[in-house]
Amino acid sequence: MTLRPTLLALALTLSPLPVLAADAPAKYRSVQEILAASPDSDWHAPAAENLLYMDLDAGRVIIELAPEFAPEHAGNIRTLAREGFWNGTSIYRSQDNFVVQFGDADADDPAKARPLGSAKTHLPAEFQRPSRGLAFTALPDRDGWAARTGFAGDFAVASDGEHTWLAHCYGAVGAGRNNDEDSSIGAELYVVTGQSPRQLDRNITLVGRVLKGMELLSATRRGPDPMGFYEDTAQRTPIRSIRLASDVPADQRTPLRVLRTDSRTFAEAVEARRNRRDDFYKRAAGHIDLCNIPLPVR
Amino acid sequence: MTLRPTLLALALTLSPLPVLAADAPAKYRSVQEILAASPDSDWHAPAAENLLYMDLDAGRVIIELAPEFAPEHAGNIRTLAREGFWNGTSIYRSQDNFVVQFGDADADDPAKARPLGSAKTHLPAEFQRPSRGLAFTALPDRDGWAARTGFAGDFAVASDGEHTWLAHCYGAVGAGRNNDEDSSIGAELYVVTGQSPRQLDRNITLVGRVLKGMELLSATRRGPDPMGFYEDTAQRTPIRSIRLASDVPADQRTPLRVLRTDSRTFAEAVEARRNRRDDFYKRAAGHIDLCNIPLPVR
Repeated sequence: MTLRPTLLALALTLSPLPVLAADAPAKYRSVQEILAASPDSDWHAPAAENLLYMDLDAGRVIIELAPEFAPEHAGNIRTLAREGFWNGTSIYRSQDNFVVQFGDADADDPAKARPLGSAKTHLPAEFQRPSRGLAFTALPDRDGWAARTGFAGDFAVASDGEHTWLAHCYGAVGAGRNNDEDSSIGAELYVVTGQSPRQLDRNITLVGRVLKGMELLSATRRGPDPMGFYEDTAQRTPIRSIRLASDVPADQRTPLRVLRTDSRTFAEAVEARRNRRDDFYKRAAGHIDLCNIPLPVR
Repeated sequence: MTLRPTLLALALTLSPLPVLAADAPAKYRSVQEILAASPDSDWHAPAAENLLYMDLDAGRVIIELAPEFAPEHAGNIRTLAREGFWNGTSIYRSQDNFVVQFGDADADDPAKARPLGSAKTHLPAEFQRPSRGLAFTALPDRDGWAARTGFAGDFAVASDGEHTWLAHCYGAVGAGRNNDEDSSIGAELYVVTGQSPRQLDRNITLVGRVLKGMELLSATRRGPDPMGFYEDTAQRTPIRSIRLASDVPADQRTPLRVLRTDSRTFAEAVEARRNRRDDFYKRAAGHIDLCNIPLPVR
């Protein structure tokens, strides 16, 4: 039931406006077709000093840091990575429909905690930033969690106009903290693996997002209720190393291109998801939530 | 930063209305505290003929069927379970941030497909039902996907007023189909394991939801892109059996109580999630999406 072509034909019959005819898509194109036809200039390579390579036995997870939103945390994370803080640590928590968490499982025990090296031991909370000076591609649909949502660079964001913040979508990476809002330093990190917990927006400092390798984190065996911390430490997933891509020899880097969220290709891909008109779909939703939009990476 | 108590104190100072004082919570109660204080009468046991026990090597997954929404599919699934259709089949697909799918991996190959026994080989699509005659507890917040959302019995639902349908939230169980809308018979089922794919609402027949054991499905190793079907059949997860609870001897049944979604306890638990005011949260969201609300089960 491809309703759209029929409605479109009607509109063209009733309206002589040439702009409609020019803008009207002759045929529905899937996201795959849109991406396949995109020019190379719509894709960019994130800066190597913003990419973390998290190497597990099962493969590599690539995280992009967001220094435009959390400069102090990004700086500390770079220091921790350069000094090998996470090498030999683990994923020590996996809570179903929520997060995996990794870092030093003994961080709360002064007798066992790893030294933080030259990393800072106190950082300000970085829950949001001024919207001024930030390029922002807004989505067409309303979101119940914020006045506006969209993308800033490679990141899903929300905004109240004056301020903009990273959103807790699938794959978002945040800095675990205690009750004080400025108690995170970026050593203990979590990754969202479940339904977007947007209630955490502006309550924790998000530091970036996973670009590649989510399937290596999301299928991690769940720890026991209620929080998913493993009682049996043997169930933790070992982390071989976390390094900055800029510190990795060129021949060991993972080539990566990310679709620019301010490109026409990205806008067309979002619209193709908002209104699916292939043979499978019988009703186009006419809507999409921020966290339903994957970022194309190749 | 517990803003709410301050605002509440102001309101009480400015307004003499006794109803405010009576309704105003003296102290924030967490969901756990609300559930712990709930009367037994707020909990119910789903009918055994609507419960499927899916027994894996790792444990038991319990699915509740929704005959009020998909009576034909529920009926066929009961027939398939009674005749042992799924015993010895497998989870043969796991796509990251989307679904696991299970049933007869050879269903498309007439030479290898399992016999369907006395199950029907054709069913109508059951994408939605009339709202009339259906008890519905609406949520206070707006949702971009539908005019209204809420709960009908144990199920997350959406509605346009005239019709109501099951929503594709985490843990929703649906009947896989081909391109024709009436091409599902309930033999091949999927479970949502990622961000709620609400664009599928009213495009596929949902048949129920997982009540218990989601962590046994959600951590299933992902199959290869793009669809997650395992190329290596050894990676499939064997299904020992899928039986109706009503066909299982009483001493092998899993005791289960589900919080009534039309209870005051449920409403209070939703509100405690909409506006979190414990020591951890610095900002209460003042909002919740349908698929962010777990159904309490004990």
